[in-house]
Amino acid sequence: MSPKITTELLKQLRQVMKSPKYVQEPVQAYIVPSGDAHQSEYIAPCDCRRAFISGFDGSAGTAIVTEQHAAMWTDGRYFLQAAHQMDNNWTLMKMGLKDTPTQEDWLVSVLPEGSKVGVDPFIIPADQWKRMSKALRSAGHDLVPVKENLIDTIWTDCPQRPCKPLITLDLSYTGVSWRDKIVALRSKMAERRVLWFVVTALDEVAWLFNLRGSDVEYNPVFFAYAVIGMNTIRLFIDGDRMMDPAVREHLQLDSTLEPEFKIQVMPYGSILSELQAVGAGLSPKEKVWLSDKASYALTEAIPKAYRYLTPYTPICIAKAVKNTSETEGMRRAHIKDAVALCELFNWLEKEVVPKGTVTEIIAADKAEEFRSQQKDFVELSFATISSTGPNGAIIHYKPVPETNRTLSVNEIYLLDSGAQYKDGTTDVTRTMHFGTPSAYEKECFTYVLKGHIAVSAAIFPNGTKGHLLDSFARSALWDCGLDYLHGTGHGVGSFLNVHEGPCGISYKTFADEPLEAGMIVSDEPGYYEDGSFGIRIENVVLVIPAETKYNFKNRGSLTFEPLTLVPIQTKMIDVNLLTQKECNWVNDYHRKCREVIGAELERQGRHEALQWLIRETEPLVRVQ
Amino acid sequence: MSPKITTELLKQLRQVMKSPKYVQEPVQAYIVPSGDAHQSEYIAPCDCRRAFISGFDGSAGTAIVTEQHAAMWTDGRYFLQAAHQMDNNWTLMKMGLKDTPTQEDWLVSVLPEGSKVGVDPFIIPADQWKRMSKALRSAGHDLVPVKENLIDTIWTDCPQRPCKPLITLDLSYTGVSWRDKIVALRSKMAERRVLWFVVTALDEVAWLFNLRGSDVEYNPVFFAYAVIGMNTIRLFIDGDRMMDPAVREHLQLDSTLEPEFKIQVMPYGSILSELQAVGAGLSPKEKVWLSDKASYALTEAIPKAYRYLTPYTPICIAKAVKNTSETEGMRRAHIKDAVALCELFNWLEKEVVPKGTVTEIIAADKAEEFRSQQKDFVELSFATISSTGPNGAIIHYKPVPETNRTLSVNEIYLLDSGAQYKDGTTDVTRTMHFGTPSAYEKECFTYVLKGHIAVSAAIFPNGTKGHLLDSFARSALWDCGLDYLHGTGHGVGSFLNVHEGPCGISYKTFADEPLEAGMIVSDEPGYYEDGSFGIRIENVVLVIPAETKYNFKNRGSLTFEPLTLVPIQTKMIDVNLLTQKECNWVNDYHRKCREVIGAELERQGRHEALQWLIRETEPLVRVQ
Repeated sequence: MSPKITTELLKQLRQVMKSPKYVQEPVQAYIVPSGDAHQSEYIAPCDCRRAFISGFDGSAGTAIVTEQHAAMWTDGRYFLQAAHQMDNNWTLMKMGLKDTPTQEDWLVSVLPEGSKVGVDPFIIPADQWKRMSKALRSAGHDLVPVKENLIDTIWTDCPQRPCKPLITLDLSYTGVSWRDKIVALRSKMAERRVLWFVVTALDEVAWLFNLRGSDVEYNPVFFAYAVIGMNTIRLFIDGDRMMDPAVREHLQLDSTLEPEFKIQVMPYGSILSELQAVGAGLSPKEKVWLSDKASYALTEAIPKAYRYLTPYTPICIAKAVKNTSETEGMRRAHIKDAVALCELFNWLEKEVVPKGTVTEIIAADKAEEFRSQQKDFVELSFATISSTGPNGAIIHYKPVPETNRTLSVNEIYLLDSGAQYKDGTTDVTRTMHFGTPSAYEKECFTYVLKGHIAVSAAIFPNGTKGHLLDSFARSALWDCGLDYLHGTGHGVGSFLNVHEGPCGISYKTFADEPLEAGMIVSDEPGYYEDGSFGIRIENVVLVIPAETKYNFKNRGSLTFEPLTLVPIQTKMIDVNLLTQKECNWVNDYHRKCREVIGAELERQGRHEALQWLIRETEPLVRVQ
Repeated sequence: MSPKITTELLKQLRQVMKSPKYVQEPVQAYIVPSGDAHQSEYIAPCDCRRAFISGFDGSAGTAIVTEQHAAMWTDGRYFLQAAHQMDNNWTLMKMGLKDTPTQEDWLVSVLPEGSKVGVDPFIIPADQWKRMSKALRSAGHDLVPVKENLIDTIWTDCPQRPCKPLITLDLSYTGVSWRDKIVALRSKMAERRVLWFVVTALDEVAWLFNLRGSDVEYNPVFFAYAVIGMNTIRLFIDGDRMMDPAVREHLQLDSTLEPEFKIQVMPYGSILSELQAVGAGLSPKEKVWLSDKASYALTEAIPKAYRYLTPYTPICIAKAVKNTSETEGMRRAHIKDAVALCELFNWLEKEVVPKGTVTEIIAADKAEEFRSQQKDFVELSFATISSTGPNGAIIHYKPVPETNRTLSVNEIYLLDSGAQYKDGTTDVTRTMHFGTPSAYEKECFTYVLKGHIAVSAAIFPNGTKGHLLDSFARSALWDCGLDYLHGTGHGVGSFLNVHEGPCGISYKTFADEPLEAGMIVSDEPGYYEDGSFGIRIENVVLVIPAETKYNFKNRGSLTFEPLTLVPIQTKMIDVNLLTQKECNWVNDYHRKCREVIGAELERQGRHEALQWLIRETEPLVRVQ
């Protein structure tokens, strides 16, 4: 990996930072954040501006360029990668280390008095703008919005913004029509006495209209905004996608509709001016609802007194609670996904053990191949983490030719992968040994398994927030002085983003919404030994009502049902470290895998994989 | 309980609200909060202004009086009591109910346009002022500070502010001299580049100077402020307490000292003007450190640009980590406390079972009597919760003649009590049955015990915040659909307040500081069945390093050591619901009680209580 040479680019950027063509007044610093205008986790190539200017293409990082300096803030996952990818023009700012200044403090230390700091107001979330603006102002500088993105002005071969065809989802997938979703949204708006709701997150637009796209890799979304009024629906979207008869039919664009369900299609780029017009037309006490993570540009379009900002939008919350059609779809998707993984693991056992020719990349490709054979497969849901031995300890590892290891009978193999099917999204991690694991490896695996079971089998009152369950996943590890440095679970979309809010299981966030029956999260504790191995056991689980002996204050209780049905390698388990209850959990789980996935393997005529499944789901026996 | 007649008082208050003698401009509303000028949890009689004006004397509540209305906000614990104690002039605002307006919303709904709302700036914390002021301003009203407390102007027989003699604590109790505490504080100040630190909490003043008082019931504190500069120490305190030779000697007031350790004693009432003088003399970049819960009056004395506000002060954090002298003192205090409780429970068994003449109040008094026989006993650390049968389900119950029940062989008895000894503070809850508990009562008790053990025996990494342990205490209850609606633990002072920050174990707060070896918290899960019984098992526990098999990232691990050594009634335990590990925990705990408390009972010649202890600490036997 050789660094990107950025001398010329930085020179150009510094020129446009002073050019009256692009800035009203010269800016002494320009901020290049990671995100897109929708605060997406995954972004399209045309939005990879920070990677373009610096060479560093990790998923998190903020670049700031001044007349003299160029600096990159990123976190511990990316220190090495950023150092490799950036040339000497750049200073790496290692976030999380004590001596690393914040962006604000650094700016204050290097800028001449009374400087202007520019940023694209569409890329910076309003809450971040507010924080940074305040800090700069108190030091005598100004944060200023620069309308035209300055990177785009120098990015001559910038890829076009994707504009791929849309997929329409009928009621059998979504359970609720877009009309009914609009009705429900308007009733939430009425409750909070807001007149307008601005949909800025791409997955929220997709969910609301029961449409999917492929503008962003792994996330079946498309570039669009929506503005919902009590009597109007405006969809801001580009291209000839609205010419597709299926989409027109789905959105009833050519039907005679009650006016409040008539969708006005508008250009993607007109969102700002339309929203400004909405803002200008408001009377006192009329409010506009936005996510507090919406861009500064859109937030500013609405005068402050008229804004109603919340951390989670009503769509985000409604989307998280899956209806029966969605959960049934998710079940089907997970069955297909398990079939693919049984095939893969059977294939790996046959290939790795005698031949030793399978690399991490080959294994990842093979996993994709088996998944792609399944009905309604669309694409992967994230970049496959296929890692063996020491690579397994790199939590966000993705095999590339430079790091690609060959799977062997001597090392633990960790596969974290998932797919988008038209009926659901999957995300599963299994950790396998193709030879004989050491006692220590089994011990660690078993603690992780105990944590996985502790969450999966937990019973907790209705209204409990996921972060209250996080310690259950760690307790067995903690008892032995071990731990893992990531959260335990994230929300999972239904043929949507594999990471979604507002729920999760993590010690890090307390702003999560309470768990409700119908929500879907991952359960993925792990253990990582730097330079040696990584272990993670991940199922996607559905929140379901629990039957309990008593019912305090009539609150009702919840628990989880695993949707993922892939065997957990019993060879890695030290049965004597399990309680009888835990042992029963594993056996019950494997019985269900054998029944459900076995039937599907049978149906698909995958007899060899079925034999593998049967072998792998033999009950554990605990010696008392 | 008949309500207080407040017609005349309210009339007088409304007069002074318009009197130019007290207010610059008439105020249309006056807020009477619960607190004192130090944001204390327990307050002195002279500070019970809200109780004086309304009759309602619960621990939490805010009164607001306008020209037409008088309203009282309080929470669910006090709905009944407030309704009984207040006359028809008052409207009860039930906090936590959906339809109850906030104070701000209510004020906006009842006030004429452009009103002024007054409040004593010494009583309202700065953060609360800010919130309320903003809400009122946005509705066209003004929150204004009223210098003279208007309640005090009409409270003709207001008790005097207490000014009781001080106790000096030598190094054998405190482990660290006040000089060394000042040195440590100044080094924290230098780290944060602040020049001044203002000590506003009473327990922080007491801790810093190794002094104790008795100005407030249950809390061994005294009314004072301190302002610490890098070269000056100012102590604001009233009365002739500084004439006491022991105090003068302790503070070295008459010695020739380096100037930076010379304590300037100033009148309590001069804090504001002195602080204003400090504020006026600051140069740019010079900061003054205050708690963000300090009063509006003191916070405003420092111009905004010079304030450095934190939720926890360096004293609060240092105070929480007990040194060896303090932990040894806490151990001694808990041994004495256990002796008193063994005597009490032995006495109760002899009195309750055959005679049935012991009431909740008699039992509480007897507990105090036994405690007061112990060396260095000072006072109780809080009002004893002595409750039997249905009274036990009232979490903050305190027996009064109207509610006083007689202990019997048919009801569960819950005793939550503690004391201040010169060497430490105790807080212990035991739940007993003097007859034969039902299977259901035993079942519930055993779940609570499992939760208690899960926390007490938990091993967790250094740096873990207490709130991450809260769910451990609930897991066994949750499994059966049960729960309790309070936190699991609070910090405990060392011969100081029985509730102290910055650590605790609760699902409710995430602002707690990480647990460290030397911190002391309570472990007190419970279960309450309205109208029937209450169960709580509470030990005070010390955070200690834990030995673990491995040591991930060299972080080290922590666990708890119970300081409380009072038998947990085995009669209430359903042994078959315990795991072998839990059973061993109980037996180990009881072995330690028998050894440590047994030796002390022996030494004190308390043979009958010793026999009781031996009976009560017989090992459990689990039938497999």
